Amino acid sequence: MNALSAYVDCIAPLDERAMAAASVRQDSLTKPRGSLGKLERLSIQLAGVYRTARPSLGRTVIFTMAADHGVTAEGVSAYPSEVTTQMVLNFARGGAAINVLAKCSGADVIVVDMGIASPVEWPPGVVVRSVARGTANMAKGPAMSREAAVQSLTHGARLAADAVASGATALAVGDMGIGNTTSASALAAAFTGRSVADVTGRGTGVDDRTLAAKVRAIERALDVNRPDPMDGIEVLSKVGGFEIGGMAGVILGGASRGVPVFLDGFVAGSAALVAASICPASRGYMIASHVSVEPGHRHVLEHLRLEPLLDLGMRLGEGTGAALAFTIADASCRILNEMATFEDANVSKSNKERGQ
Amino acid sequence: MNALSAYVDCIAPLDERAMAAASVRQDSLTKPRGSLGKLERLSIQLAGVYRTARPSLGRTVIFTMAADHGVTAEGVSAYPSEVTTQMVLNFARGGAAINVLAKCSGADVIVVDMGIASPVEWPPGVVVRSVARGTANMAKGPAMSREAAVQSLTHGARLAADAVASGATALAVGDMGIGNTTSASALAAAFTGRSVADVTGRGTGVDDRTLAAKVRAIERALDVNRPDPMDGIEVLSKVGGFEIGGMAGVILGGASRGVPVFLDGFVAGSAALVAASICPASRGYMIASHVSVEPGHRHVLEHLRLEPLLDLGMRLGEGTGAALAFTIADASCRILNEMATFEDANVSKSNKERGQ
Repeated sequence: MNALSAYVDCIAPLDERAMAAASVRQDSLTKPRGSLGKLERLSIQLAGVYRTARPSLGRTVIFTMAADHGVTAEGVSAYPSEVTTQMVLNFARGGAAINVLAKCSGADVIVVDMGIASPVEWPPGVVVRSVARGTANMAKGPAMSREAAVQSLTHGARLAADAVASGATALAVGDMGIGNTTSASALAAAFTGRSVADVTGRGTGVDDRTLAAKVRAIERALDVNRPDPMDGIEVLSKVGGFEIGGMAGVILGGASRGVPVFLDGFVAGSAALVAASICPASRGYMIASHVSVEPGHRHVLEHLRLEPLLDLGMRLGEGTGAALAFTIADASCRILNEMATFEDANVSKSNKERGQ
Repeated sequence: MNALSAYVDCIAPLDERAMAAASVRQDSLTKPRGSLGKLERLSIQLAGVYRTARPSLGRTVIFTMAADHGVTAEGVSAYPSEVTTQMVLNFARGGAAINVLAKCSGADVIVVDMGIASPVEWPPGVVVRSVARGTANMAKGPAMSREAAVQSLTHGARLAADAVASGATALAVGDMGIGNTTSASALAAAFTGRSVADVTGRGTGVDDRTLAAKVRAIERALDVNRPDPMDGIEVLSKVGGFEIGGMAGVILGGASRGVPVFLDGFVAGSAALVAASICPASRGYMIASHVSVEPGHRHVLEHLRLEPLLDLGMRLGEGTGAALAFTIADASCRILNEMATFEDANVSKSNKERGQ
């Protein structure tokens, strides 16, 4: 993992001084203290990430990473695997939800084939970093080799670093991959220690029978592979996916370059578990865009001690929640930068702050 | 209430056909059914408001309505009353949170003096519709006369209709008024039947002693005035405020002109209770931007059967939550208008939808 270490080794803790200065400034702005809630806390985190009391989000890029999953052989999804390929074509043509929502927030979308089973001749714009044509069926053995896991992580970290070198100042990770909530649930169970039933949901919308098959497949995958939760790369290789490794790599690469990485939903959250396991300091750079209706997502965010910004009952992936969160994060920075202080505006402070 | 009736009488129920068509279209877009959660439901409501399956939000205007409250004599707030005037000046200069957040979402802000106790010579841009220089102390008698209540409602309805005539296609209501969460709690208790303790919180951040005084003042106000919950104008006159009447008027005026009205926080929610009591059909035009940390707000939204879009731990007012919600609502419309369908994009439907 030498190429990956080069990224991980330069992930610094957040800048506490910038955070303290941003916090003091928040309290000086013309509003009751704390009255902007999560917006205030987010602006302070971003101050720590950007190492300045006056952070701004700047140019945002969403990585939508796609791959296929051998575990679909166990009948775990409501959609056939060919949909992964079809949706990547849809992303490339601009017809998917992520295209529309990214446009709303002014973000660029970079679509990456991390390991699609039946790739086609992709139109321009689809970046190919395919590790293999889909993972193996994790219910019968490791999803991928340790080498392949490191490769997916390294691809992601490099893509993130390249994006920052090209001017991106905030990144997001989202996913596309039929069967990938099955992998995400396996990762969530392995890292959080929760039962499979606790962290497994209906994904794209499976019925009761398919849900039961999904739980059984995950239980078998964990039983057959026995991943060591202290070794993030091992867990990724045994029950993960190539797009999940890619997203974890983007998180590590983004953190190494000092930019925040917005997590989309449950599958992106499972990638965050991998990243945090490889480098706990990367957690400071993560922003939980929203909490999805997938029941495992809450447990993942609790484990990472991340507070989700939005709760819109979404369960789509692709980076859609992150695209919406960008506008909230931008607003949080602009509050810090553009509001008047009590002193500027000649507004009286509260009786308590005036000592009454 | 003749001038007001002219608005109320032309509030139509939402267009069910447009909503059904929007719902069918949502299900045809390239995403699992329902996977955009609240975004989908909101787009369908907006289809009903705009009477088209392809709604768009267009030009947004936030009314930030300010007034003072005689009940501050009971020591219910952490801030002195002069802050209402100071903050209106801050709005006019663009230094407040609402100015920054409105700019983020491209909304215009119209600041209205509905009844400030110590008005000054306002800079241009502050609209004066002052009913009186602050309400009377509701703990000792009615906050205002029935005539004044109707006047505040009519001012609001006219301002809304004028804004729509000038090109606004979506409105929002927010508040500024030291002491106004005390009025809002009294309105919430009167309309929902909840206990005063259930619907009373710390407003701008009062301590335990002030909170106890606030609860006592509200209980006295309800006891002295005994407002009839079936008569919205009476409740407004006895325990309301001029900015609350103004906001209720904007809701009724906006609904009469067929545009959605985004409610900000708890005080705007109390205005929505007044509007819904005067004209239940106006409820269809209301969008609950967020749920504030004021404990009464959840009860208000439940009573109105409105699902809040955001939950960001905010408690500022001014229209700040509505400004953020505009961007979410705009995104919800653009999903409906700009996403590809399964057919357009040649994406396979789920096994179930294909009858497998």
